[in-house]
Amino acid sequence: MSGPVVWHDGAWIAAGEAFWPAADRGALLGDGVFETLFWRKGAVDRLERHMDRLENACAAFGLTCPVTRDQLGDLAAELCERNGLTLAALRLTVTAGIGPRGLDRDPEAQPSVLLTAMRRTSPPSSIALATSRIRRSPTSPAAAYKTLGYTDNLAARREARQAGAGMALLLDTGGYLSGADCANLFWMRSGTLFTPGMECAVLPGTVRAAILDRLPVETGAFGREALVGAECVFVTNALMGAVPVSALDGRAVATGSGIPGSIAEILD
Amino acid sequence: MSGPVVWHDGAWIAAGEAFWPAADRGALLGDGVFETLFWRKGAVDRLERHMDRLENACAAFGLTCPVTRDQLGDLAAELCERNGLTLAALRLTVTAGIGPRGLDRDPEAQPSVLLTAMRRTSPPSSIALATSRIRRSPTSPAAAYKTLGYTDNLAARREARQAGAGMALLLDTGGYLSGADCANLFWMRSGTLFTPGMECAVLPGTVRAAILDRLPVETGAFGREALVGAECVFVTNALMGAVPVSALDGRAVATGSGIPGSIAEILD
Repeated sequence: MSGPVVWHDGAWIAAGEAFWPAADRGALLGDGVFETLFWRKGAVDRLERHMDRLENACAAFGLTCPVTRDQLGDLAAELCERNGLTLAALRLTVTAGIGPRGLDRDPEAQPSVLLTAMRRTSPPSSIALATSRIRRSPTSPAAAYKTLGYTDNLAARREARQAGAGMALLLDTGGYLSGADCANLFWMRSGTLFTPGMECAVLPGTVRAAILDRLPVETGAFGREALVGAECVFVTNALMGAVPVSALDGRAVATGSGIPGSIAEILD
Repeated sequence: MSGPVVWHDGAWIAAGEAFWPAADRGALLGDGVFETLFWRKGAVDRLERHMDRLENACAAFGLTCPVTRDQLGDLAAELCERNGLTLAALRLTVTAGIGPRGLDRDPEAQPSVLLTAMRRTSPPSSIALATSRIRRSPTSPAAAYKTLGYTDNLAARREARQAGAGMALLLDTGGYLSGADCANLFWMRSGTLFTPGMECAVLPGTVRAAILDRLPVETGAFGREALVGAECVFVTNALMGAVPVSALDGRAVATGSGIPGSIAEILD
């Protein structure tokens, strides 16, 4: 095969020949989960954390987790080799498979699994946020897991683009900071690092988890005013690492000297 | 062709040969909308209302509405004829089409459209509801439109099934009644008909709209206690019409003499 290759339900196929059946519940109802993985230095970055999150998401949605840690590591390595990639954005998608009409699954349905890769483009040097009018429900599984129902984040991103920003900032329904449309949110104030707590409809990012493991961070419910006058604000996700926020709703945000050294070290 | 036939992006094809490209944003991110249509008496029931809702949803998500009212009526008729169906559940799915990695769409992307039909099975004579712990955000587009991100409704249904019920009852994040996982909610008290108002994260159902047009109905924000002691409680959607609720969280609900005659008349 020439051209990009993907792994789909156990087979290596040309990317252009990978399809979901029309009746796949992932495509019809958002019935599935995914992970975005960063391949660099010959390995999946933070594979263990991605596997933990994938297993949690599969359990939450009643899906059998289709790969082990070692299998995913091996598949990722082969995928990147076949595609000649050394720095890549990978995506593992798990759908509930083909099901009947309606909300109830066919108990016999087999999940469908797709692993794709593309060149990872450099993250922006900074990013402008716009606050969305969409507020996340702290009890929403679509907010708490990386599901195929990314609809609210997409709508928030569209709003942000229309406001001239690069990414949306979302609050929860209590009016507290939750995160960006595809990234977690951090800020520093008087030398203390802060991030919204899980009770604020936060998606548990792998970089967020790594930072919380290694540095003292205050977590909790904070209003948007917490960002005003912060020494720096930044967003994190697996592919971007940490990117300074340069503006919020059209007003410049202090980014200090960019990402704090202690964060850069964790992401190195 | 023998076997079921579907209409996909302008062509009549065998249902088993209908696929979404792996990179379709509908399948990957829930970037799309749908309508469920009831075909009976040689026509789509309440086609006008479905078209209004579809056009609203497409506009909200920046999608070009792919069919006019007349086109959809004609396609539905041909689909049912080709499949030999006189009483059918149709689904029109509109995805954002193929896009790049990430949340931003390719502005050149073409929406993908699929129209499918299957025999419509009889609705249950009554249904038991279980209150979900998932609460809908009143600002969530995924709650307000029929999007491919049905994830929270699916999770609520799973919970309800585990509790021995047939359908989930969802509240909004304020604790007010919102609706069932795939249906709107009505109840009668002292002869007055009630339904949650749009401010309560309600999906604007076509049957709900028809009832509101023809009968006096009190809409607003009501707690779950409003259902206790109601003369009857029922759920509505395009395919089921109106189905009496027999139990809520394991306790019997008075269903009076079933669906009120004034409602049955509208649904006839």
